[in-house]
Amino acid sequence: MTGRGVGTGGAAGDTAQSPVTVTHHRVGYADTDQMGRAHHARYLVWCEVGRTEYMRSRGRSYRSIEADGILLPVARVEIDFRAPLGYDGRVRVETRVLRFRSRMITFSHGMTVAEGTGEGLLAAVARTTVVATDRDGRARTLPDSLREALLTDPRDSA
Amino acid sequence: MTGRGVGTGGAAGDTAQSPVTVTHHRVGYADTDQMGRAHHARYLVWCEVGRTEYMRSRGRSYRSIEADGILLPVARVEIDFRAPLGYDGRVRVETRVLRFRSRMITFSHGMTVAEGTGEGLLAAVARTTVVATDRDGRARTLPDSLREALLTDPRDSA
Amino acid sequence: MTGRGVGTGGAAGDTAQSPVTVTHHRVGYADTDQMGRAHHARYLVWCEVGRTEYMRSRGRSYRSIEADGILLPVARVEIDFRAPLGYDGRVRVETRVLRFRSRMITFSHGMTVAEGTGEGLLAAVARTTVVATDRDGRARTLPDSLREALLTDPRDSA
Amino acid sequence: MTGRGVGTGGAAGDTAQSPVTVTHHRVGYADTDQMGRAHHARYLVWCEVGRTEYMRSRGRSYRSIEADGILLPVARVEIDFRAPLGYDGRVRVETRVLRFRSRMITFSHGMTVAEGTGEGLLAAVARTTVVATDRDGRARTLPDSLREALLTDPRDSA
Repeated sequence: MTGRGVGTGGAAGDTAQSPVTVTHHRVGYADTDQMGRAHHARYLVWCEVGRTEYMRSRGRSYRSIEADGILLPVARVEIDFRAPLGYDGRVRVETRVLRFRSRMITFSHGMTVAEGTGEGLLAAVARTTVVATDRDGRARTLPDSLREALLTDPRDSA
Repeated sequence: MTGRGVGTGGAAGDTAQSPVTVTHHRVGYADTDQMGRAHHARYLVWCEVGRTEYMRSRGRSYRSIEADGILLPVARVEIDFRAPLGYDGRVRVETRVLRFRSRMITFSHGMTVAEGTGEGLLAAVARTTVVATDRDGRARTLPDSLREALLTDPRDSA
Repeated sequence: MTGRGVGTGGAAGDTAQSPVTVTHHRVGYADTDQMGRAHHARYLVWCEVGRTEYMRSRGRSYRSIEADGILLPVARVEIDFRAPLGYDGRVRVETRVLRFRSRMITFSHGMTVAEGTGEGLLAAVARTTVVATDRDGRARTLPDSLREALLTDPRDSA
Repeated sequence: MTGRGVGTGGAAGDTAQSPVTVTHHRVGYADTDQMGRAHHARYLVWCEVGRTEYMRSRGRSYRSIEADGILLPVARVEIDFRAPLGYDGRVRVETRVLRFRSRMITFSHGMTVAEGTGEGLLAAVARTTVVATDRDGRARTLPDSLREALLTDPRDSA
């Protein structure tokens, strides 16, 4: 579920390197629309699962982050759809951290066809940004411990 | 949006007569699946909107009921699908109260094709039951004032 | 993913015994509503995945059944919600065939908390019925080969 | 439902001026997540309804465009979320055409709080791009008649 990826870093605050978390989804009937492909809004949910599993893989479940009083609502989403994902196909989502700033985290998500015809084909690329707030919606600063946890590949500590 | 309907009452606690609230929905692309019709799970959301607007029409928005500390989670759902609803079609939902007990309310929902080919055709019938709980999930008794509000057609008071 | 279950059979056409397929889902943020639990409409999607994986486990993917010209739209749904499923919880869905008639199949679905507090607790029970039609919505008879495939546990043939 | 808006035009192919279509949505329970606000993926569906109603308002329903053999799958989505939309709130969506090229159309969507506290507050801005394909996914050129229909405010012809 976890590997090493190369970010697009350079500017201060960008992550030169981030671990990668891989998640998979099967395109179910409920995910399709009458074009017979996964509806585009569904990809946002796959990105969300990618972020959640990315955090869990680093030992900081989003549930525990919320329990600590930090919410991470989505502030921005950008998706390019490249190839359709048909019914019953499987999609592989690679999630990594692209930028970690004091009050926001930007994730990148690469989605590829994971099975059958077109395996390996790029289906979509996305960037999603979450911002840190408290329960009342006021901006919060992300703790250093979270930064460290999210940017460290647990395999490095072996 | 509001009319008078006849329930199926008889047993104690059943409502011999309940007002009716009518809501409409357009079947959007996101609602369809690859059969080119509204996905069956979507009907539950239309029933939910029906219950919400039923309460609002009686002067008791669900939001205000929750603000008073009463939650109404869904305890049971039963739907019979009779005729498919195609993309871009319109559905008309008639919601009424079928039973009002001390701790639960059962709604009935009749869904018909509202436009175009097949207008008036029965698309689905549903019954949904909500139970009263507090924020911690403990059973609550529904206040008499709510019973009175939900079973009174505001046009009667004119 | 596959085990043996005991049906509720008796009447002709009922399945005295059906294999069981087990699927799991994590309750994501998109699945929750403001009560902080999985929204009730989401359970229908889990049942749908259960039916799909049940068929796949028996060697007849729903995709291949559709390719043979048989569609299986949902005709009836019945769900009892017993215990809420909180955010980030895992649910285990046991799907079996309850009845296999010439033109319809009824599945039963038992959903339990799969992890953490309340593990093993019954979250919901459902019955879903699909009917066989052709692409134009006309009733079709289900082929015997499908009946045989769906009611045979592949482990029996070992 | 229809007004006049000012685009951001300039470059060839950009629309100096596009009509505007306004749609409204009530944030239902199914739209919320456990933060008690509309889930971010839901906004994409509101944009989709915006595009659909924009086309219908210009006399070219998307259904009729599909019937003519032109599909308009979503190729790109960009959304900035500015202010949360709470349960039972109403959102107003202003949709206009930002760019009309030979094979793609970019829409802009401005979403504002439509009722109650914060009325008029900007909730989100989005750009969505659809591309023209045939049923087999091959690129198509958009007919001039469609361009003319979509960029003409019907009130102008009065």
